Amino acid sequence: MIQQFIQKAEVLIESLPYIKSFSSKTFVIKYGGSTMEESIKRDIVHDIILLKYIGINPVIVHGGGPEITAYLNKLNLKSEFVNGLRVTDKATMEVVQMVLVGKVNQEVVSMINLYGGKAVGLTGKDGNIIVSKKRLPETIYDTEGKTEKLVDLGFVGEIERIDPKLIIGLCEHGYIPVISPIGVGFDGESYNINADDVASAVAQSLKAEKLIMLTDVDGIYEVAGNPATKITSLTINKAQQMIANSQITGGMIPKVRACIDAVSNGVKRTHIIDGKERHSILLEIFTDKGIGTMVIED
Amino acid sequence: MIQQFIQKAEVLIESLPYIKSFSSKTFVIKYGGSTMEESIKRDIVHDIILLKYIGINPVIVHGGGPEITAYLNKLNLKSEFVNGLRVTDKATMEVVQMVLVGKVNQEVVSMINLYGGKAVGLTGKDGNIIVSKKRLPETIYDTEGKTEKLVDLGFVGEIERIDPKLIIGLCEHGYIPVISPIGVGFDGESYNINADDVASAVAQSLKAEKLIMLTDVDGIYEVAGNPATKITSLTINKAQQMIANSQITGGMIPKVRACIDAVSNGVKRTHIIDGKERHSILLEIFTDKGIGTMVIED
Amino acid sequence: MIQQFIQKAEVLIESLPYIKSFSSKTFVIKYGGSTMEESIKRDIVHDIILLKYIGINPVIVHGGGPEITAYLNKLNLKSEFVNGLRVTDKATMEVVQMVLVGKVNQEVVSMINLYGGKAVGLTGKDGNIIVSKKRLPETIYDTEGKTEKLVDLGFVGEIERIDPKLIIGLCEHGYIPVISPIGVGFDGESYNINADDVASAVAQSLKAEKLIMLTDVDGIYEVAGNPATKITSLTINKAQQMIANSQITGGMIPKVRACIDAVSNGVKRTHIIDGKERHSILLEIFTDKGIGTMVIED
Amino acid sequence: MIQQFIQKAEVLIESLPYIKSFSSKTFVIKYGGSTMEESIKRDIVHDIILLKYIGINPVIVHGGGPEITAYLNKLNLKSEFVNGLRVTDKATMEVVQMVLVGKVNQEVVSMINLYGGKAVGLTGKDGNIIVSKKRLPETIYDTEGKTEKLVDLGFVGEIERIDPKLIIGLCEHGYIPVISPIGVGFDGESYNINADDVASAVAQSLKAEKLIMLTDVDGIYEVAGNPATKITSLTINKAQQMIANSQITGGMIPKVRACIDAVSNGVKRTHIIDGKERHSILLEIFTDKGIGTMVIED
Amino acid sequence: MIQQFIQKAEVLIESLPYIKSFSSKTFVIKYGGSTMEESIKRDIVHDIILLKYIGINPVIVHGGGPEITAYLNKLNLKSEFVNGLRVTDKATMEVVQMVLVGKVNQEVVSMINLYGGKAVGLTGKDGNIIVSKKRLPETIYDTEGKTEKLVDLGFVGEIERIDPKLIIGLCEHGYIPVISPIGVGFDGESYNINADDVASAVAQSLKAEKLIMLTDVDGIYEVAGNPATKITSLTINKAQQMIANSQITGGMIPKVRACIDAVSNGVKRTHIIDGKERHSILLEIFTDKGIGTMVIED
Amino acid sequence: MIQQFIQKAEVLIESLPYIKSFSSKTFVIKYGGSTMEESIKRDIVHDIILLKYIGINPVIVHGGGPEITAYLNKLNLKSEFVNGLRVTDKATMEVVQMVLVGKVNQEVVSMINLYGGKAVGLTGKDGNIIVSKKRLPETIYDTEGKTEKLVDLGFVGEIERIDPKLIIGLCEHGYIPVISPIGVGFDGESYNINADDVASAVAQSLKAEKLIMLTDVDGIYEVAGNPATKITSLTINKAQQMIANSQITGGMIPKVRACIDAVSNGVKRTHIIDGKERHSILLEIFTDKGIGTMVIED
Repeated sequence: MIQQFIQKAEVLIESLPYIKSFSSKTFVIKYGGSTMEESIKRDIVHDIILLKYIGINPVIVHGGGPEITAYLNKLNLKSEFVNGLRVTDKATMEVVQMVLVGKVNQEVVSMINLYGGKAVGLTGKDGNIIVSKKRLPETIYDTEGKTEKLVDLGFVGEIERIDPKLIIGLCEHGYIPVISPIGVGFDGESYNINADDVASAVAQSLKAEKLIMLTDVDGIYEVAGNPATKITSLTINKAQQMIANSQITGGMIPKVRACIDAVSNGVKRTHIIDGKERHSILLEIFTDKGIGTMVIED
Repeated sequence: MIQQFIQKAEVLIESLPYIKSFSSKTFVIKYGGSTMEESIKRDIVHDIILLKYIGINPVIVHGGGPEITAYLNKLNLKSEFVNGLRVTDKATMEVVQMVLVGKVNQEVVSMINLYGGKAVGLTGKDGNIIVSKKRLPETIYDTEGKTEKLVDLGFVGEIERIDPKLIIGLCEHGYIPVISPIGVGFDGESYNINADDVASAVAQSLKAEKLIMLTDVDGIYEVAGNPATKITSLTINKAQQMIANSQITGGMIPKVRACIDAVSNGVKRTHIIDGKERHSILLEIFTDKGIGTMVIED
Repeated sequence: MIQQFIQKAEVLIESLPYIKSFSSKTFVIKYGGSTMEESIKRDIVHDIILLKYIGINPVIVHGGGPEITAYLNKLNLKSEFVNGLRVTDKATMEVVQMVLVGKVNQEVVSMINLYGGKAVGLTGKDGNIIVSKKRLPETIYDTEGKTEKLVDLGFVGEIERIDPKLIIGLCEHGYIPVISPIGVGFDGESYNINADDVASAVAQSLKAEKLIMLTDVDGIYEVAGNPATKITSLTINKAQQMIANSQITGGMIPKVRACIDAVSNGVKRTHIIDGKERHSILLEIFTDKGIGTMVIED
Repeated sequence: MIQQFIQKAEVLIESLPYIKSFSSKTFVIKYGGSTMEESIKRDIVHDIILLKYIGINPVIVHGGGPEITAYLNKLNLKSEFVNGLRVTDKATMEVVQMVLVGKVNQEVVSMINLYGGKAVGLTGKDGNIIVSKKRLPETIYDTEGKTEKLVDLGFVGEIERIDPKLIIGLCEHGYIPVISPIGVGFDGESYNINADDVASAVAQSLKAEKLIMLTDVDGIYEVAGNPATKITSLTINKAQQMIANSQITGGMIPKVRACIDAVSNGVKRTHIIDGKERHSILLEIFTDKGIGTMVIED
Repeated sequence: MIQQFIQKAEVLIESLPYIKSFSSKTFVIKYGGSTMEESIKRDIVHDIILLKYIGINPVIVHGGGPEITAYLNKLNLKSEFVNGLRVTDKATMEVVQMVLVGKVNQEVVSMINLYGGKAVGLTGKDGNIIVSKKRLPETIYDTEGKTEKLVDLGFVGEIERIDPKLIIGLCEHGYIPVISPIGVGFDGESYNINADDVASAVAQSLKAEKLIMLTDVDGIYEVAGNPATKITSLTINKAQQMIANSQITGGMIPKVRACIDAVSNGVKRTHIIDGKERHSILLEIFTDKGIGTMVIED
Repeated sequence: MIQQFIQKAEVLIESLPYIKSFSSKTFVIKYGGSTMEESIKRDIVHDIILLKYIGINPVIVHGGGPEITAYLNKLNLKSEFVNGLRVTDKATMEVVQMVLVGKVNQEVVSMINLYGGKAVGLTGKDGNIIVSKKRLPETIYDTEGKTEKLVDLGFVGEIERIDPKLIIGLCEHGYIPVISPIGVGFDGESYNINADDVASAVAQSLKAEKLIMLTDVDGIYEVAGNPATKITSLTINKAQQMIANSQITGGMIPKVRACIDAVSNGVKRTHIIDGKERHSILLEIFTDKGIGTMVIED
């Protein structure tokens, strides 16, 4: 019994070098949304609170595609997708914002606070954190690769600049900021922005120590579908080749691009890890090897 | 032409004694929601920004009943009302929160930022600002005044305590907090709370100089429906009598009670004014007479 | 009646963009002295206090030639003037200092405090703000333009350097500094310094947003004496040409030179405006067009 | 030679206990004016600067009766005196203020700055430091002790309250405040106030460690005119008896009363010493016995 | 393998509530000296560093009897003991101080710094932290309980007062203070003070959350020598009875008295635990039951 | 009698320019140890405290060779010296540290505190102030100048870097740091370091105004042994020549080298003065000529 406690104490002690080296650094964590099981979410939230208590500043950016789709369905608002991007008209944008800000964000905030952290929900409109502009129309190519037409995406936006003052202020006063990927345009209008991009841009503006992408895969594979070929550490160069070679595809492309962008702009380390793995954040941080794929400078 | 400018300068100079006397004081403003015309909303927002720039700390609490009803209708969620309170089941509560936090709050934040302020949206869940508990079941009386039955209101809450630290911190750093009337319960659950009560409780916790209720009437009348009998200044005692005498009725009761509660707990002045009147906030503050009804200590 | 108040509120709101853009900036105001009517002085003082309350830091530099002359006459001390400069022997200097510091400065301070500001009178000797040296003797030319003789000016001084720490400290603590144009020499002796030069040098040392010269003319005319040819915006180059061409003459020359010097050394804007015009400071600041002549970079 | 330096070092070391015990305390010094010899003034100023450098906060209040009389004579303004107080009409008050603020104060400031201190001149009007009211008319008694008539004193004032914030702020930032005994009335008018009273009131408002009255006598004598009966330490009680017994007379009465008032209101020690004695301030402070008369609590 | 890491993460998460509840509290730890095995010392030091990194302020007080005895022997200085106290003449005191301050203290400091903390060694003489006086002579009783003689203990001291400013300052700047139990007397002489008393007095002066006595027994037994009767939680009353009943004896008495004294003077909890048990500090803190005996208020 | 006091006051006044010019500067003082007479030590300590009170930050580095030797003798530990350096095995190092840290340092601390300063003892291990490494073996040459053998010096160390944060923090909070010349190695081991080198390195890391070496000679002589040829001011170049020419020899070499090193790395002035001369520190500082030899830049 006592012996068991001692083993636990050993674990705490083993984590000491990691605690020391990350003390007062900032970690931006992209959190996939609320489709995961409750128990996994609770684990993630516990990990985040622990980071805060041992002197690290976690900043959360969340997504929420499935919840958005669910509510749009309830309201009979059908979304068209172009090149994987949701065409977002005004009515859709209103629902996107309500779901992200009024539902998903508050669920994360509430869970963090319930387990002992002090979270504050933010959107890119609060304090004009995420200034954005309309994304250019998407080009659709015909089967021969020729431009067939341009499709206006509506209120899908791109990040113009991040103003991190409010985020920094909250971190310094002991809060954990939880950010919805909504940007504000020139006339105050809302934009739907890719959450991976927001996480990357926020990490850059904070000169974060780490950008951690919680996904539902356990990393990037050399050979698609073959876990035995998981890449532990991937240079920017290699990553760009793998995208070009279609070794990295689909939803993983924006994540890897967000990592490349972050590493190229002052973020020390970026990690793509499996959020469904229990305590994946702590494992990534408190073990030498880590668990997912790390994208790093050449 | 120059003469006209000089008259304008005179107005600025006339406002000087008011600016001086309110410098660095806090005003909590209950803002009815977003059903008003755009132009009125813009005026209110301008007034609020002006307060901030001349050294007053405005804190906004918003409501949003009509928007909630509209969305519930779109989603075919019918609300039952008991004694004027919406019975709020889990699905309803989710919509309430989405509309208040993800729509109404962000619209206010966005408009303030568009016109040059720096607003930050908050809910009572952020930083556990509004700790709440479930409201007791409502009693329904039969026509003879006997208790007929008790109706559980679901996620309708009461305020247990306000933690104003986050609000104060944001004010001190130049932000205008905009608060949605959502409380957090013991298990992290959300509660729908009366916005008048939230405004009053926040004002008390901040020891505010003023609590200003923006309504759609221009004050309280001695004789119902007779604007000529508008009361400029109403003591707590008199207010309580008027409620007992049914001179004050309906939706005005919670507003007056919120004012009484505030004045009894350290808020200097409370005002019930007509938000549709242009620049009503400035008029109330920058004229000796004010424009609505002021509820004050005996 | 209410309608009239609303118009007043509109004026406040119209001033908002100006208040925002000048927030926490410094304005140095050269104030001609106390020969003006009481009511004009009161207007000027109100304007200055309003600036302070809306977050601008006004710093006042005053002159006082007429009051000096009046007291010298009472004491039978006759002044000789050379090239427009008063030859200032020791007895004269004592009177100059008494009148500027003990009379004019305290009148300005007293009036600001009476109407609700917090002014503090300073001379260049307090905290060694204005370190000066004796001005070289003035050359008098004969009618053929040859040097006829050199005249020693006594205690007329030039500015060697400004130490703005005391001024800045007072501004930050909510005070309005009012500065007499007295400099201190190497041995602690007092020097009589041109007030326009002091205002310009102080503005430079504070990297002021604006230097405002309150005069008794409403600006600079393209054609002397023709108000219809008033120049709204004058570049340094043009100003220097106009001095060379004798389009600018007499007492206006040191004012324009002081403006040129200020603009060339980091002061954003300089304005020559008519102090007798009611609320001229506010008009200059809170209207797009302004009212006098602005001297700006090329 | 070296031996002589060593003796000097010994003196510094001997002063150490005094330096330690007075570290960061405030001393208010009433300085009689500028009639003294230059060399004595220089010694006093050196003593004051030394106090500042060893961590004491000196605050100077000066008088200036003789200089005022001299200038009034030059201007042919004759003063009437009633019970030792100058009847001060508006013209006289203007001269009083000009001489005190524009001449005497600036001379003290200038000398302190010349020898290495950082002095700032203040009047009771700056920052409304000395709020005053008109002194009641003086009663003149006939030879039989009956009231003969009341004489209005014009702008002779009494202290209503001291606001020490500006003085404290300047001390904390390394400056030595030098205060002219001019008070400000309700309408902004100037009042001529007894400098001993100002020194006492300022010392009280600052909770000063010491109030030091520099006079031209070396203390209070038990037997008038007999230096052998000098009293080293005088209790309030004894002092009041001596005034009642006419052992203390004339100009010494207001000084002793100012000391009594100070000691009764929180000033630790008050000293009446001979300013003409070289380095009298240091002697009073850095020797156990002191040199003048100390007025202390019973 | 991953599974094992996950279990480790679980341990970290389990410690979260404890980390939260002790955040920014002070723990004073009495550390018995350096006779323990290296590996145990290393564990203790790791525990202390971990406390610091998770936001607790550990303050160490060390003893060192065995090392002192060893050096006295090498120097042929024989110590007499009276009632368990070492008679400490001047030569002995010099050795006591050299061993405690120059050897034991620096070993603890060095080990903490080696494993990643920032320790600073202090004695009670540094900044006059521990002001002491000579302990009264010890009474020796003959076998019949009569006073036989008084023995002067030399430089054995008692604590007069603790000045915690230096300790607090070091804690706030991230350091771990390590204190030798040497007090300073009125004339600057050193006193040998019981380390348990120093730990208790320091804890009181810091209003510490916990005083932890690391000993070589695992707590206090109801029945001497019977580990099965270990008392988990002991009230002051009970503790005093047990001393009176000789259930607590020998070297445990001063430890228990130090705990009683601490609890009676504002220290929340005191713990007597076995320092040889691995990670005993963490076990005591991070488990609900703890491991030793806790002395608490009645 | 009074006359005598006045002369003393004059001395204080004469010191004013020096006090002003050194205000808030740092002086590092190498203090030879405790072999001096008590009265001399008391004078030195008084001088140091006076420096602190007049606004200078003294930092003390002490040596202690004779005390070390005395204790090593008592313990029958014989030291071998190679090229003037003590071969320091582990047992010797333990004694070196105990004597320096536990005896000499605490004596200096205690005396400073006794006379009114606030000293804190430090070693290079506290807060890892002095990070060191093992010194290379010393080469012994035979009579023909050929390398005869290499001798390992044991725990004799060299300075790798100084971390002055702890020293600066203590100075800013009013303490006088007293530093023992013990360095900490990579594995936490202690190193015996030359105190002159420590004083020089500490002065460099603090960008000290002065490094003052208290020795037992009154400076450097042009002609060895001839006090009449004492050099007041010695350039680095000249100093290096004099070492090369053997005009500077023996124990003076490391002192001069430490001064050269300091001056070459940002220390303004270095002084070698006679600590046995009474008040030599004050004489050096408060007289224009000073008393010893000053080593300065070319």
